[in-house]
Amino acid sequence: MSVLTDPKKIALHGGKYFLPQLSVDCVILGFHDGELKVLLLKMHHSAHWALPGGFIYKEETVDDAAHRVLEERTGLKNLFLQQFHVFGNPARSSSKATVEYFKKEGIHLDKNSWLAQRFVTVGYYALVDFAKAQPHPDLFSDACEWVSLREAEDLFMDHSDILQKALETVRLQLNYQPIGFNLLPRKFTMPELQRLYETILGKPLDRRNFQRRMLAYGILKKLAEQKKGVAHKAPFLYSFDTQRYRKALAAGLDGGW
Amino acid sequence: MSVLTDPKKIALHGGKYFLPQLSVDCVILGFHDGELKVLLLKMHHSAHWALPGGFIYKEETVDDAAHRVLEERTGLKNLFLQQFHVFGNPARSSSKATVEYFKKEGIHLDKNSWLAQRFVTVGYYALVDFAKAQPHPDLFSDACEWVSLREAEDLFMDHSDILQKALETVRLQLNYQPIGFNLLPRKFTMPELQRLYETILGKPLDRRNFQRRMLAYGILKKLAEQKKGVAHKAPFLYSFDTQRYRKALAAGLDGGW
Repeated sequence: MSVLTDPKKIALHGGKYFLPQLSVDCVILGFHDGELKVLLLKMHHSAHWALPGGFIYKEETVDDAAHRVLEERTGLKNLFLQQFHVFGNPARSSSKATVEYFKKEGIHLDKNSWLAQRFVTVGYYALVDFAKAQPHPDLFSDACEWVSLREAEDLFMDHSDILQKALETVRLQLNYQPIGFNLLPRKFTMPELQRLYETILGKPLDRRNFQRRMLAYGILKKLAEQKKGVAHKAPFLYSFDTQRYRKALAAGLDGGW
Repeated sequence: MSVLTDPKKIALHGGKYFLPQLSVDCVILGFHDGELKVLLLKMHHSAHWALPGGFIYKEETVDDAAHRVLEERTGLKNLFLQQFHVFGNPARSSSKATVEYFKKEGIHLDKNSWLAQRFVTVGYYALVDFAKAQPHPDLFSDACEWVSLREAEDLFMDHSDILQKALETVRLQLNYQPIGFNLLPRKFTMPELQRLYETILGKPLDRRNFQRRMLAYGILKKLAEQKKGVAHKAPFLYSFDTQRYRKALAAGLDGGW
């Protein structure tokens, strides 16, 4: 399978190569400077940021298409990438807006062309190591950047809804599955882990309750070393017990039935 | 939107009415006689049972299409119907098998026609009240019946995989969300609730641990009455505290963070 790299060919003849009226969109989340950030594209000729997305080649699985998009935008391979929702409202795309966008790109798109049709999109999310990702814009964007959730507003098309639904999914999963493996450095402090939870939940948590509950899950290893470069009361470092972490991913944090 | 009811028109001209290469398939589960059952269709000219499914009209949302299929097959409206996975492997459908199937229906389908293409399908599941559902076959099936999970094997195309994935999803949800509201009668005994959990999980559970854990969730109301027609030690009846049940659906059984 050869990947198309000519924007004009994609716009005018994509129908020969891609599944019709179906796309993938990826919510790629990273944690940096105590903030949850989402990888967004600054599209050509548009004030709006957009989620990275793409089309599915006729001979490609839908999951493979999502992995390809993630790799093209971040350089990261074989990541945990989770389908979370299909966005299938006919009103989510506009034939007129698509034709106008491509006019600005210098491409005359007929309103009956493949790209001007209604698209159903499959939403995926990934939690990635911020430090390892190398953002690359796509053929239709000027920039690809990490944007803090606070600033990720008024996105392209229904991408704000897609982002919200991904966050709801992650918040629900916080109740029964561990999180943090790809989001935190290998060694972290309890306050850093708590900050991650607070950022995802969008609310402060009680320090002592948080610590008690996290320790009760049995997925953390307390390390002998303490965090360096901190003046007083150097906090202990923890890492995940990867075996127990994986078990909790499969069976739930309370061990399942 | 008028619904097509002529099999020949659907097979030959469906491309004018439906989204191309996209379908929905529904895993409809009910609980009866201490067994979990799935609603299946016995297809024309085939030894295989199939999941109820359908196509998406060009002006219809994907969720609406799934609700329409559920209503057409069961008579049930406005049910909780949950997207759980997109099945997007090109190998899941076979152009040749489709052409052969329709040949037996007396319909000559060209291998380039819309129906003989690769289809991506969106999987939905519903937990329904067995007593209220009225199964109806569709245009391409002889029968629509509840089949116990033990017997629901070797289904049409990849429908066995779709069923398994739905069951995995429900099993995972048992760890953090309540279940049973549509599956049990309004008043039920603790052994009946336990039997439901055991059926879904496919393994026996300890009676005393089960009771302690279920009561600790705080979603059950113990009723004053006891089950009638039972010789010795008539068991207590319970019903769900609907307000707490709904809260636990949203925030998780342990109350969330």
